[in-house]
Amino acid sequence: MSRHFLAESSIELSGGDYGIVAVVAVVALAALVIGYFLLREVLAAGQGTEKMQEIAKAVQEGAAAYLNRQRKTLAIFGVIVFLLLFALPADDWNEAIGRSVFFLIGAIFSFSIGYLGMWLATRANVRVAAAARESGGREKAMRIAFRTGGVVGMFTVGLGLFGASVVVLVYTGQAPKVLEGFGFGAALIAMFMRVGGGIFTKAADVGADLVGKVEQNIPEDDPRNAATIADNVGDNVGDCAGMAADLFESYAVTLVAALILGSAAFSASGAGLVFPLIIPAIGVITAVIGIYITRARAGESGLTTINRSFYISAVISAVLSAIAAFVFLPDSFDGAEGNPAVIATVSVIIGIALAGVILWLTGYYTGTEHKPVKDVGKTSETGAATVILSGISVGFESAVFTALVVGAAVYGAYLLGGAVALFAVALAGTGLLTTVGVIVAMDTFGPVSDNAQGIAEMSGDLEEGEGVQILTELDAVGNTTKAITKGIAISTAVLAATALFGSYSDAIMRALADVNASLGEVGDSFVDRIIEPNTLVGVVIGAAVVFLFSGLAINAVSRAAGAVVYEVRRQFRDIPGIMEGTTRPEYGKVVDIVTRDSLRELATPGLLAVFAPIAVGFGLGTGALAGYLGGAIATGMLMAVFLANSGGAWDNAKKLVEDGHHGGKNSEAHAATVIGDTVGDPFKDTAGPAINPLLKVMNLVSLLIAPAVVQFTVGPDASVGVRLAISLVAVAVIVVAIVVSKRRGSVMTQTPAEQSTNA
Amino acid sequence: MSRHFLAESSIELSGGDYGIVAVVAVVALAALVIGYFLLREVLAAGQGTEKMQEIAKAVQEGAAAYLNRQRKTLAIFGVIVFLLLFALPADDWNEAIGRSVFFLIGAIFSFSIGYLGMWLATRANVRVAAAARESGGREKAMRIAFRTGGVVGMFTVGLGLFGASVVVLVYTGQAPKVLEGFGFGAALIAMFMRVGGGIFTKAADVGADLVGKVEQNIPEDDPRNAATIADNVGDNVGDCAGMAADLFESYAVTLVAALILGSAAFSASGAGLVFPLIIPAIGVITAVIGIYITRARAGESGLTTINRSFYISAVISAVLSAIAAFVFLPDSFDGAEGNPAVIATVSVIIGIALAGVILWLTGYYTGTEHKPVKDVGKTSETGAATVILSGISVGFESAVFTALVVGAAVYGAYLLGGAVALFAVALAGTGLLTTVGVIVAMDTFGPVSDNAQGIAEMSGDLEEGEGVQILTELDAVGNTTKAITKGIAISTAVLAATALFGSYSDAIMRALADVNASLGEVGDSFVDRIIEPNTLVGVVIGAAVVFLFSGLAINAVSRAAGAVVYEVRRQFRDIPGIMEGTTRPEYGKVVDIVTRDSLRELATPGLLAVFAPIAVGFGLGTGALAGYLGGAIATGMLMAVFLANSGGAWDNAKKLVEDGHHGGKNSEAHAATVIGDTVGDPFKDTAGPAINPLLKVMNLVSLLIAPAVVQFTVGPDASVGVRLAISLVAVAVIVVAIVVSKRRGSVMTQTPAEQSTNA
Repeated sequence: MSRHFLAESSIELSGGDYGIVAVVAVVALAALVIGYFLLREVLAAGQGTEKMQEIAKAVQEGAAAYLNRQRKTLAIFGVIVFLLLFALPADDWNEAIGRSVFFLIGAIFSFSIGYLGMWLATRANVRVAAAARESGGREKAMRIAFRTGGVVGMFTVGLGLFGASVVVLVYTGQAPKVLEGFGFGAALIAMFMRVGGGIFTKAADVGADLVGKVEQNIPEDDPRNAATIADNVGDNVGDCAGMAADLFESYAVTLVAALILGSAAFSASGAGLVFPLIIPAIGVITAVIGIYITRARAGESGLTTINRSFYISAVISAVLSAIAAFVFLPDSFDGAEGNPAVIATVSVIIGIALAGVILWLTGYYTGTEHKPVKDVGKTSETGAATVILSGISVGFESAVFTALVVGAAVYGAYLLGGAVALFAVALAGTGLLTTVGVIVAMDTFGPVSDNAQGIAEMSGDLEEGEGVQILTELDAVGNTTKAITKGIAISTAVLAATALFGSYSDAIMRALADVNASLGEVGDSFVDRIIEPNTLVGVVIGAAVVFLFSGLAINAVSRAAGAVVYEVRRQFRDIPGIMEGTTRPEYGKVVDIVTRDSLRELATPGLLAVFAPIAVGFGLGTGALAGYLGGAIATGMLMAVFLANSGGAWDNAKKLVEDGHHGGKNSEAHAATVIGDTVGDPFKDTAGPAINPLLKVMNLVSLLIAPAVVQFTVGPDASVGVRLAISLVAVAVIVVAIVVSKRRGSVMTQTPAEQSTNA
Repeated sequence: MSRHFLAESSIELSGGDYGIVAVVAVVALAALVIGYFLLREVLAAGQGTEKMQEIAKAVQEGAAAYLNRQRKTLAIFGVIVFLLLFALPADDWNEAIGRSVFFLIGAIFSFSIGYLGMWLATRANVRVAAAARESGGREKAMRIAFRTGGVVGMFTVGLGLFGASVVVLVYTGQAPKVLEGFGFGAALIAMFMRVGGGIFTKAADVGADLVGKVEQNIPEDDPRNAATIADNVGDNVGDCAGMAADLFESYAVTLVAALILGSAAFSASGAGLVFPLIIPAIGVITAVIGIYITRARAGESGLTTINRSFYISAVISAVLSAIAAFVFLPDSFDGAEGNPAVIATVSVIIGIALAGVILWLTGYYTGTEHKPVKDVGKTSETGAATVILSGISVGFESAVFTALVVGAAVYGAYLLGGAVALFAVALAGTGLLTTVGVIVAMDTFGPVSDNAQGIAEMSGDLEEGEGVQILTELDAVGNTTKAITKGIAISTAVLAATALFGSYSDAIMRALADVNASLGEVGDSFVDRIIEPNTLVGVVIGAAVVFLFSGLAINAVSRAAGAVVYEVRRQFRDIPGIMEGTTRPEYGKVVDIVTRDSLRELATPGLLAVFAPIAVGFGLGTGALAGYLGGAIATGMLMAVFLANSGGAWDNAKKLVEDGHHGGKNSEAHAATVIGDTVGDPFKDTAGPAINPLLKVMNLVSLLIAPAVVQFTVGPDASVGVRLAISLVAVAVIVVAIVVSKRRGSVMTQTPAEQSTNA
């Protein structure tokens, strides 16, 4: 079976095609409008007592302060990358400028979605808490929480689709190149938001627990704990802002991959640039349906309600996608066998089905009602060590099955696609995308309910009773939906990365053709590459980077949590009256400390993600870089699911014990599960979810540098000196970043004095 | 740069070559003789008090009983594989019979080395304990422990080298094919010994600790604990027998890879079959020197003594190897550029240097005197969760750096080797091998001292004082040498697997040529493979199998430990007088239970290792299988080091606290490190070390099935039906094995009744 390589700027859109893309753009704008109306509905809800509003305000201010400071840091970084992109080869100035400009637009969109997610969540939390106090509170609270997610979902799909369709309208044949910039901007910022927010939320959470629960023996969210506000801020900047940016990035990059490969599959007509936009447009419609049909029924668990919405909208998406395929696709691919409509329909359905299976699989491994979490709960009777071991086993096992399911989906699309195999994989990705609107809505559930519970607890205005129960139920549902979202996100990462991996190879082929190497030679050099240790070394380095990234993220949380521990201890010691509840602790100080530390800590993993592919590509060549990407995708997929699901299982095992199993709250079994949960915190909320944007950033960097790597490897410009110089600079950046972060110390028990001596 | 493919049976050895190989065989036999004299020296030492001998006897009987039962299980499996090997394509009957017969010989050698390691260790332990009581005890105890290791080291290199040289003498041109069988036999049995022994030792250890230390609050090795004898048996069947078989396998497989690739590099002369035998023969000589110069000096730590021996013998190996290269290698490769003597010398030195760096790196990450373990110790002040997190960070980080160092060695050899790159990688492997004799001697140190301490404690015949201190010091040194050995073992795995990976590709090429596909077509199909999702799916599955294997091994330990917990609890409850020390517990019962469970548990991971490559190869094709091997090697390397070093760091962090840091014994910090150590037990002694033989088994299975896969994929015999049928059978075997093990339950807290209901 022969393969298609990217046709260069040869695509022209017909008038009809322009019309369709314009309609897609209008649908995208409509999504934004619907999002706006949902937003108004959420904000119109009652805000509860004065005390609750006061606490909510503190959280709002802290979260806004963090994101504003993060914006300044990222802006500098964004401008540097904007300029650096001009250094990479491009066909003409139009393309080079478009790529850089849309890099900025992708970055801004990504940040904005994150900011919106935080902004709204910090306003929705208090409203959910207030609703829980009213009569019929359960339905009202659930509605507000889910509608909040709906706003973010609508803005995610709206901005993603709008950006992509504008690129196609403006750049047509050059759209793929410009889209690389758009996707890169979205992925890069999302990665920073995920890492920074993830460090923030878990540093505050772990720090608060270590002093509050462990040392002072006061309950979670107790207002006497100086870290409580920071903990609530963390839920919003990590789970809301980070997650929203991450899903936006998943959406944008998958779309980008489908458009790049679509333009290769239908190089003569515009179908390849149009069809990948139609599927997500269908997703917008079904997401709206999904969000509006989600109504809590009495006596039904919240998860059942959400699942029903998901499955209904998934089926509608599948049906509409099939119709679209038969209406809009031409009868044949250019020079390749197979019926486009059939291939596209089945591919999209594979993607939608994959979302459903992941939903079920993650629910099984992390839900309190299934065997794995029950088993972890049981091991709490023999102490913390067995809790850790059983959680790790659950994580490994679920990672394996998730990887096999995703692998099967990729392989299914691949078999089906024949000569357009990669396009089929990318289409499966767009199928998965049609569910993103509902997924985002589901995910936001978790942090908003968590925060609502925190506000209720801190204000003391929600006494034991129905209101508390409602919020506890929503929080448990949120734990599972959060795990599910992570599973879906990493699946989109694998599909998009696989497709991009193909695009990378295409880019290499094209660049090689450009430097006048005959195709025969190209073939030969690839034969060499696959079987030589070179490629295998690339695979090893790719896998190693995932391990390093995870280790750095976990370590960063430990360090930042250590600073929180010292500050909270100091306040208990130096400020009289905190323990008695007569003086308020200085919440803002802790927020400031975590803000400063998270922003400092995100640099090392971020630089690693950007510079590692540069070091490998220029240093070891294109074959090693291909191996690098393969190793990173495979290990990253497993590691991400392992970290997310073992963390989720520990969290819910703790919930099981708190619900009265195995001795209940304050038993030794409970203490054992608290240890498990603390270990799981940076697993599931920092390291695990950040691997998803990491994979995309590394693939996009590789795609962007591919022509330059070839330029300096073969052909007239080949220069070992230049190649090695670039590689060494990249290595130096990574080494310096790691050394700096190492010097900050590697343990949370370091005193601030020790840390500053080391810094 | 063009590549060499394996020449088929065209090699003839000259009379001089025969002479050299015969000399190598004699050197190998000399190693066995030296081993025998060392053995007599160890056995001649005093055996201590009657009580000590009584305990030692119980351990001897338990260990022998386990290995005898394991032998029966493995014999059946061995015979089946012996027959199955005939089903695979071979050039003629001579080759087919040789492959199967040497498979059996490799298997028997592997088992025998393991048995010998156990047999001797269970006799040396009591002698070390006895020596520690005498005056000048430190030097005497150390000498016995190290000489015990020397015996195993001499037998490991002697049998490995003897087997390989006999194959070369008898089969010459067909030697590579027959060697595949020899290596496969060694690796397969070693994997089972590692997994079974690893499960045994940690199930007994964890089970003993959970009831003894945690529930009954009695010290480790207390004779009132019914699991103590089983724990001591475990040290011998796991750390001695399993490790010895594992290192023998590493030795044999690396040698096999070097001989296979050597015969490709010098297809006209016999140099490629002779030189890879000369290097390990040099290793025998330097190992003897290393073992005899190891003498403890007063006031010097045990680790310094051992390191000195290692470095001196490494330098001697390097010098002698260089001389051998210039004397024995021809002036040029067949049809490839480069000076063989220079390439070989530098490659061997790369391997030796790699061993030195790994030694240092592992010592740094797991030694009590360096920062990482001290940091983990520090985190004990904030509880178990932070101990776990910091240990995991240390594990990730050390895995990354170890992987990069090994990757650099592979890449260095690759760059150097040019057209014979893979041969250079294999030669680096033989360089590493020259250190194996000393490494085995070092490793045996750990379990022997550990056991000596246990016997001393149980007998009560070694009161507090110098004797106890000596044994404690030796035990701590043993912890680090054990971790170092694992680092070296996994490095040999990566070098050998990389070389075998290349052999696999060669085998595919040859098989393709056999079915008359033109080379041009072959090239094209490879181009397809690397860039298509198919290969990436293979990488994902390969990485997933490593995760699954690790999870299965950890789970098996949990389950078997659960059975121990119930039995020890039962004995405390039902047998009066145990706690008062008036009645002896029934030690044998616990040994029986662990024996039965370990043998039952090793089936699933074992079957997975053998059948997964078959499923992938026949199901998805040769490209996916190549990806599979790459993914498994990369992830396996990282996972093995992560598991070994985080476990080692936790173990020694506990030792730090027990030495009086952070509150000392029985403080809360101590409890936190005990949890860390318990989590680390199955990491470092079951799952981690078993990954090494796993990688070799999977590579060798792939190499063996490669021609058959090609036969059913392309050419006249191609049949999708046959291919899928074979693949489905393999998948079915794996699924059944997993389901059976799942039904046994997945938690250690299951009662035996629950387990048998499920089974």
